[in-house]
Amino acid sequence: MAVDHRKRITIWNEFVHERTKPEVKELYPDGIHETIRHALVEKLGDGFNVGCATLDQPEHGLTDEVLENTDVLLWWGHAAHDRVEDAIVAKVHRRVLSGMGLIVLHSGHASKIFQRLMGTSCMLRWRDAGELERLWIISPGHPILAGVENPYFELPAAEMYGEHFDIPEPDELLLISWFEGGEVFRSGCTFRRGQGRIFYFSPGHETFPIYHNVNVQCIIANAVQWAAPITRGTYDPDGRHIQASLSPIKCA
Amino acid sequence: MAVDHRKRITIWNEFVHERTKPEVKELYPDGIHETIRHALVEKLGDGFNVGCATLDQPEHGLTDEVLENTDVLLWWGHAAHDRVEDAIVAKVHRRVLSGMGLIVLHSGHASKIFQRLMGTSCMLRWRDAGELERLWIISPGHPILAGVENPYFELPAAEMYGEHFDIPEPDELLLISWFEGGEVFRSGCTFRRGQGRIFYFSPGHETFPIYHNVNVQCIIANAVQWAAPITRGTYDPDGRHIQASLSPIKCA
Amino acid sequence: MAVDHRKRITIWNEFVHERTKPEVKELYPDGIHETIRHALVEKLGDGFNVGCATLDQPEHGLTDEVLENTDVLLWWGHAAHDRVEDAIVAKVHRRVLSGMGLIVLHSGHASKIFQRLMGTSCMLRWRDAGELERLWIISPGHPILAGVENPYFELPAAEMYGEHFDIPEPDELLLISWFEGGEVFRSGCTFRRGQGRIFYFSPGHETFPIYHNVNVQCIIANAVQWAAPITRGTYDPDGRHIQASLSPIKCA
Amino acid sequence: MAVDHRKRITIWNEFVHERTKPEVKELYPDGIHETIRHALVEKLGDGFNVGCATLDQPEHGLTDEVLENTDVLLWWGHAAHDRVEDAIVAKVHRRVLSGMGLIVLHSGHASKIFQRLMGTSCMLRWRDAGELERLWIISPGHPILAGVENPYFELPAAEMYGEHFDIPEPDELLLISWFEGGEVFRSGCTFRRGQGRIFYFSPGHETFPIYHNVNVQCIIANAVQWAAPITRGTYDPDGRHIQASLSPIKCA
Repeated sequence: MAVDHRKRITIWNEFVHERTKPEVKELYPDGIHETIRHALVEKLGDGFNVGCATLDQPEHGLTDEVLENTDVLLWWGHAAHDRVEDAIVAKVHRRVLSGMGLIVLHSGHASKIFQRLMGTSCMLRWRDAGELERLWIISPGHPILAGVENPYFELPAAEMYGEHFDIPEPDELLLISWFEGGEVFRSGCTFRRGQGRIFYFSPGHETFPIYHNVNVQCIIANAVQWAAPITRGTYDPDGRHIQASLSPIKCA
Repeated sequence: MAVDHRKRITIWNEFVHERTKPEVKELYPDGIHETIRHALVEKLGDGFNVGCATLDQPEHGLTDEVLENTDVLLWWGHAAHDRVEDAIVAKVHRRVLSGMGLIVLHSGHASKIFQRLMGTSCMLRWRDAGELERLWIISPGHPILAGVENPYFELPAAEMYGEHFDIPEPDELLLISWFEGGEVFRSGCTFRRGQGRIFYFSPGHETFPIYHNVNVQCIIANAVQWAAPITRGTYDPDGRHIQASLSPIKCA
Repeated sequence: MAVDHRKRITIWNEFVHERTKPEVKELYPDGIHETIRHALVEKLGDGFNVGCATLDQPEHGLTDEVLENTDVLLWWGHAAHDRVEDAIVAKVHRRVLSGMGLIVLHSGHASKIFQRLMGTSCMLRWRDAGELERLWIISPGHPILAGVENPYFELPAAEMYGEHFDIPEPDELLLISWFEGGEVFRSGCTFRRGQGRIFYFSPGHETFPIYHNVNVQCIIANAVQWAAPITRGTYDPDGRHIQASLSPIKCA
Repeated sequence: MAVDHRKRITIWNEFVHERTKPEVKELYPDGIHETIRHALVEKLGDGFNVGCATLDQPEHGLTDEVLENTDVLLWWGHAAHDRVEDAIVAKVHRRVLSGMGLIVLHSGHASKIFQRLMGTSCMLRWRDAGELERLWIISPGHPILAGVENPYFELPAAEMYGEHFDIPEPDELLLISWFEGGEVFRSGCTFRRGQGRIFYFSPGHETFPIYHNVNVQCIIANAVQWAAPITRGTYDPDGRHIQASLSPIKCA
């Protein structure tokens, strides 16, 4: 039987608003995850196998088999962070440290998994007034920004996310957003934790067609490629000490 | 009644080995915390009020009153990480994000509080063979290293801690240790999380007189000064979103 | 004779606009340097000795004796970057690597000394339209921001400096500015180079009373304290290799 | 005529020792650059076009045409840093800021181009005693380390490079070397400057067969892929300010 050598992407969505709010359902009739999946399939082509998982599935769709075979996980959550089981969060955490990429979208800033990886509250300032957001490029030339409009691109109606954003200093700051109402936000940030690469990307409120925006789609597709590990590692971040030989080597 | 304007330091020690192992009791008859306390009092002088807390005290000695009034907390634990209650860890975590400094010593790398702040396993390689450790200065001029021997100082018999050390990239790497047996280790690292400053410093095995070493004492005293907040802040990292006004300001 | 143990601060100003443009002279009749000097004397008190130096003095006022005895140098330049002699720049560069703090103000981003320390072009986007600048605090609790209004403060009329700002990733990002016209800017950044601490702080256009603003004065005074070395070091960044002993030490 | 879409790699070597010292010529009969070129061709395959340039060629082999068409430049120099012309260094500097990758090898730490990009002296401690170097992996999972022996690999006889190494804090620290004689060194470091990615990799003394080592070859080949820009950019780091429109945009 043929082995599937494609990178495996899993888009996780709590999938709540799309079933309860008509205006969200209209924008994302099959769920935010399906809109993102279509965009990734179109942009990434044959080298990637893109699947989805949602909160209401058994084990939230994140079984051991799915996690073991996921190279990059995307995370969208908002209304139901508390309903994500701690045991599943612990497994995702371990997989990120073992090398799985993680892309945290929008309100996922307050998810258990992002808070656990960051070690901070990850809280921020916000306002849902459908205002103009202009995203400035801070790291031109970064692979995650390849093909994106320079020196900025705009979202005509967005939820404001503002500073202070309580995260550790990012490894790389890729985007800073300007909001019409007077705020700024570090809207694209990379972090490495264990062997895993993490990208936080703030646009994405469910009541706006953000995930239909070509620049947003482009950045997510680039981030998937950036976050994918070269090989599925054998690293064990499971919490055990490694005891070295009791006899130190002798210097020649 | 006079107000005490001194910075308040609390040295937390699990205080287990010193009561169960004769060779440790001999080195630290009143506990590692008392040895460190004496060194800090001597080196820091009148501007600091240095106290201690231990695992076996009610609330591990870290009551709300103690934590609220602590500017810098030192942490030494090894055999009893699991016996530290999660509720206390959560309080310490919140205080660090609110601006309390934290100095994590030696085997405290595997403490709940350090793992929670780092978001990684914090695991490492080790060997207890009493070998030579030479600590090289990587950031000459850093306030934490003021007065320390340049370009390195030595501990004649130490426990080896080796890479890979599973931590986020430190904000500043101050020391790298060379071990006789063939390993290296990032032995002095700074991190900022929320408003709190964190310093991890690896020397300190309980069976060696590490905390009697003048360079080690000097670095801990410097770190206390570096980690102390300018003012006790009013920042709230408690996990609540800050909702901004629904009407964005108008540009003039 | 009594030794002066105070930290020595030198404010360097090209001092051109104040003598050629009436509107600048009105705001800064004795030069921007004198306005800053008065603010520092008032805020820093007796522990600091604050002097000035200007372009038109011999050696631009930065003789060997002045540089050797300066703990923190402030730099304001704009119209005359090219008239600063390379030999003086080389001396300032060496002193920063040896531990002298450096605070680069506003248009000093394009100075020879800042470009040399950063290794990049340090170029940016700008517009002189007297628009509203709102400076958001990104690192609450940082000593340089002690006492500054939280979560932001404003300058009602400022020159816009915007991204992309071509600098290396700062060690710490303290402030991000929002501009009325639609731009953002990393307006407060720290860097360490050699033993020296560097702070870049963007407000300060000569045609606005920026250096009379209490928050701006407060940040500069804090930065002086932050950048001052603990001791005047003996480190030699002068370009010579250090050849170690040809016989490696023997492991015990 | 067919367009060559392959990434273009240029290996620059001063090519002095190989022509003057018999023991070096024996190890690298056609020059260090040719040994590296063969390794890269073997490991990188058809997607890359690997060429060389040397000091004694006109414009040191780095004409405008060569530089414009180079995606990643490797740099080996030691005895003749001063003979590299400043005008060529300025061009290479501009190309790195424009997005060309740069891999600096061994004694290239003291090259004009590396010093200019770092802004520091880049000096270090050294000893040529043919001692054991053990390179520990600090960032497991990093693409530059893909396929390299874990948790360390060794070079049985190497020149010692030791701390303090006077560089800015690296963006990512990938390797720390342990030396038999008692030193440590940050032997693999990444930096981003402008749009360019830079990797410093310390092994490589000309009197040892370092560039015949499979782990060393593997790391250089990985670094070439990591440093290659996605696209050849149009970014201009040339020193001109970008003046934005004098009329700020109006908020809707």
